[in-house]
Amino acid sequence: MSFSPLRFDDASRTLWVLDQRRLPQEEVWEPVQTAAETAAAIREMRVRGAPAIGMAAAYGMVLAHLGGEDPADADAVLRASRPTAVNLTYALDKIRPAWGDAARVLALALEVRSETEATDRAIDLAGAGVLRGRVLTHCNTGALATGAYGTALGAILEAFAQGRISHVWVDETRPYLQGARLTAFELQRAGVPAAIITDSMAGHFMARGEVDAVIVGVDRMALNGDFANKIGTYALAVLAHHHGIPFYPALPLASVDPGLEDGSGIPIEERPAEEVTTFRGIPVAPDGFPARHPAFDVTPHGLVTGIVTERGVLYPPFDERLRGALTAAARPAGAP
Amino acid sequence: MSFSPLRFDDASRTLWVLDQRRLPQEEVWEPVQTAAETAAAIREMRVRGAPAIGMAAAYGMVLAHLGGEDPADADAVLRASRPTAVNLTYALDKIRPAWGDAARVLALALEVRSETEATDRAIDLAGAGVLRGRVLTHCNTGALATGAYGTALGAILEAFAQGRISHVWVDETRPYLQGARLTAFELQRAGVPAAIITDSMAGHFMARGEVDAVIVGVDRMALNGDFANKIGTYALAVLAHHHGIPFYPALPLASVDPGLEDGSGIPIEERPAEEVTTFRGIPVAPDGFPARHPAFDVTPHGLVTGIVTERGVLYPPFDERLRGALTAAARPAGAP
Repeated sequence: MSFSPLRFDDASRTLWVLDQRRLPQEEVWEPVQTAAETAAAIREMRVRGAPAIGMAAAYGMVLAHLGGEDPADADAVLRASRPTAVNLTYALDKIRPAWGDAARVLALALEVRSETEATDRAIDLAGAGVLRGRVLTHCNTGALATGAYGTALGAILEAFAQGRISHVWVDETRPYLQGARLTAFELQRAGVPAAIITDSMAGHFMARGEVDAVIVGVDRMALNGDFANKIGTYALAVLAHHHGIPFYPALPLASVDPGLEDGSGIPIEERPAEEVTTFRGIPVAPDGFPARHPAFDVTPHGLVTGIVTERGVLYPPFDERLRGALTAAARPAGAP
Repeated sequence: MSFSPLRFDDASRTLWVLDQRRLPQEEVWEPVQTAAETAAAIREMRVRGAPAIGMAAAYGMVLAHLGGEDPADADAVLRASRPTAVNLTYALDKIRPAWGDAARVLALALEVRSETEATDRAIDLAGAGVLRGRVLTHCNTGALATGAYGTALGAILEAFAQGRISHVWVDETRPYLQGARLTAFELQRAGVPAAIITDSMAGHFMARGEVDAVIVGVDRMALNGDFANKIGTYALAVLAHHHGIPFYPALPLASVDPGLEDGSGIPIEERPAEEVTTFRGIPVAPDGFPARHPAFDVTPHGLVTGIVTERGVLYPPFDERLRGALTAAARPAGAP
């Protein structure tokens, strides 16, 4: 069911990367054979999504070892490809102790992949259990984003496989159209009945009783359950609340920031205005007209029905339940 | 302050039409000299907005008379250009009794324009009085839509001229981007500080306390105040309500349908899916992927703060106040 954008071929020492910039019109797999080429694929956003970036970086270190590159140089070029990605740092830190041992580096890279797969799978099974009927989602949170099964979109695909849902509403997700381009691509491959809508249509279909649940991804969550995600998520939460429709963020517990008590401390990245006022280089607004482009917004926990994690769905009070889940997740497997 | 997209030149027997399809990149005025050319400009959406279409049709009858065309033929071709537009029918019905008398037809066409101007002006003065600070609007409801001063956007321009507002948030208004293309064009000409946002950002800026009022246009209103308008209006109303921000529809009383008790009877036009899944011919979704495209949504009167009309701002109970305003508007001027 998964459609990972990363395929590692040990025999040819090649990482095949699905170029997400060219989706959905073209499905182009590009061969990557060095750490520098891996870093370029990340930097140029052929690979996107924090977990997928971490996984690609791990394979980049494998390629460096197979190609006889200096591990320190390879690590440096990969680490600099997207400096703020937490998963990138995690993957490279995990592999560092094995530098110089190609077999061990490969084993650790495969471990990064299997960890992501296990986490995604647990999230998807938990999420599938709370979905029914017609589900609405935003942005792309599928295999294309995590490299494994996906989070919110993974839960939707699992719920469809279980016969729990009948239809998916795909927010196009302006300005980058990750919904129309990427989520639609994954749903089409999986054969799930779906329809793209502009972000402005979600409220209309909720009012008509045609949305039974909303599930979205999470960029970063505070300890009280407030969370940042792709711009437009907050409006969906308000609309779902107004219509009494359950609203679920889905995330690995690694996306909870233990240093954040609430969402007020989450910085919102402001991206270039041109990303709003042009479309593939074509201007859609008067020359020089100002635009704003906050890439994320913050949804307060009061609008959240339940938080879908790899340790199950957490219900209020979120602060208590999130701390409990984080403590449990930090304990070694099998510990009492 | 007005920037009408229609300029009639009596001396050269020419109606100059600003081609709105090419805005904002190009400001192209096209000469129109026959009823058939006027009908083509309407049909091809070089002219858009119900009042502007009515005004163009009136001038089309003037052109027919000046060019010696058969009035019945001219009327028929104009009437067929956009069959459902109420203002088109109104203008042509008004001119019909004067067929064959070019001077009288011109006088009636100028009367159509001056009626629209007077109505817009009264709406704008009423609307300006309730706006303050940072105002958010959706779609295009300016001079480009009415041919005169505009309704919701006219009120914004008037409020700016009065020093009442400091900033305008312009919803880009997917899928046609009337906000980014047309409203931004009008605000830029008027020198009003403004910023385009994607429709999905409105909630975010409301939550940050950066929106003080919302004013939108109306496609059709029922007697209880429920109204249809461009898709996305309903979500704005819910968001404004959630944040305690005043929300105003602005309209001429002619847009109230006395045959509709409430909004449940308003039909919602479903337009082609391709208008959502392509951008200027470029596909943005997988080939053949379904999309939905309701062009309008319905906002219930319970989310409305006040209704801005040419007879002032009406407050709840809307049904009583709307019936009163309609009765007053129907009385001849000067009647007791």
